[in-house]
Amino acid sequence: MLDSDERRVLAARLRDDVLDAVRRAGGRPELLATAPVEADVPVTVDDRSLSTAVNAALDDHGEPTAVVMADLGLATPRALSRLFDASGDVVLAPGRGGGTNALVVRHPAFRVDYHGASCRDHRRQAHEIGATLRELDSHRLATDIDEPGDLAELLLHGDGRAARWLRDAGFRLATGDGRVAVERHP
Amino acid sequence: MLDSDERRVLAARLRDDVLDAVRRAGGRPELLATAPVEADVPVTVDDRSLSTAVNAALDDHGEPTAVVMADLGLATPRALSRLFDASGDVVLAPGRGGGTNALVVRHPAFRVDYHGASCRDHRRQAHEIGATLRELDSHRLATDIDEPGDLAELLLHGDGRAARWLRDAGFRLATGDGRVAVERHP
Repeated sequence: MLDSDERRVLAARLRDDVLDAVRRAGGRPELLATAPVEADVPVTVDDRSLSTAVNAALDDHGEPTAVVMADLGLATPRALSRLFDASGDVVLAPGRGGGTNALVVRHPAFRVDYHGASCRDHRRQAHEIGATLRELDSHRLATDIDEPGDLAELLLHGDGRAARWLRDAGFRLATGDGRVAVERHP
Repeated sequence: MLDSDERRVLAARLRDDVLDAVRRAGGRPELLATAPVEADVPVTVDDRSLSTAVNAALDDHGEPTAVVMADLGLATPRALSRLFDASGDVVLAPGRGGGTNALVVRHPAFRVDYHGASCRDHRRQAHEIGATLRELDSHRLATDIDEPGDLAELLLHGDGRAARWLRDAGFRLATGDGRVAVERHP
């Protein structure tokens, strides 16, 4: 649906929207990136695997630390406040398809492992280390922008830079029977 | 992924799970169906279009009335309590793909129209009739079981009859990179 330059632009818009939402929910956002990026927040560059890099950041930051994926284009301050305010040693916001789109860590022994159905593995680990677990039920945090169908969610529910960019780029909802899709107009 | 007999069985399991969850959330469920079904709750048979039939039911029942789709296989008493307890003349739980998976109607002029991106149209209508609107952010209520990817959600998060049936029928999560899928083992 997008060429590689457009993907880069959309990813940056999504990241900026997420940083804003984290800030407005009372968080102090920092970026963890695989390569240098320009941003008005502290950036840590770590080109190791996602899980290794996030676990190193958890070591550095101590508890509580929240880890929020930068492509959660529907994240609002309200949805993130629910995440930050939920009680539990580990608070997990599952992503569609079994990922862990956002989490709060308040237990020193908890470590992430994003491979496969990570929300299931994170549940199991919390149990094994005796950490109390809370799962947050949020469509906004469950929706990472990965696939064409996710762009429809962004058009339906997004109101930040990413959704505006998508509309400016000619994307519109294509309604019919069943779930809506997106189509692009020149 | 399923033949037509299996689809019928899965649909019945989903419906029974939803009826249970509604009951445990404090609701008094009734079924609206296009043809006679056996159930231990009152059944209204109406073979007109979904919107026409639901609007007739809203006329009959008055306010407040909740309308919950029978294929919300991840619905829990907790998720439905959030829906029932939310304030607003209209409370809307958007479905993935722009549908309206569940709603509460407390305004006599509100009428459903499920065609297309109905959550967008329902938002607009609430505004036009001066009804206060609340949108409920729930992955569980956003997930209707329509497509193969939804079966993965049922295996990941479901613990009712439908999820058990799916496991007994040989379905398992297929993990890899990105979102998990389902595969079937004989």
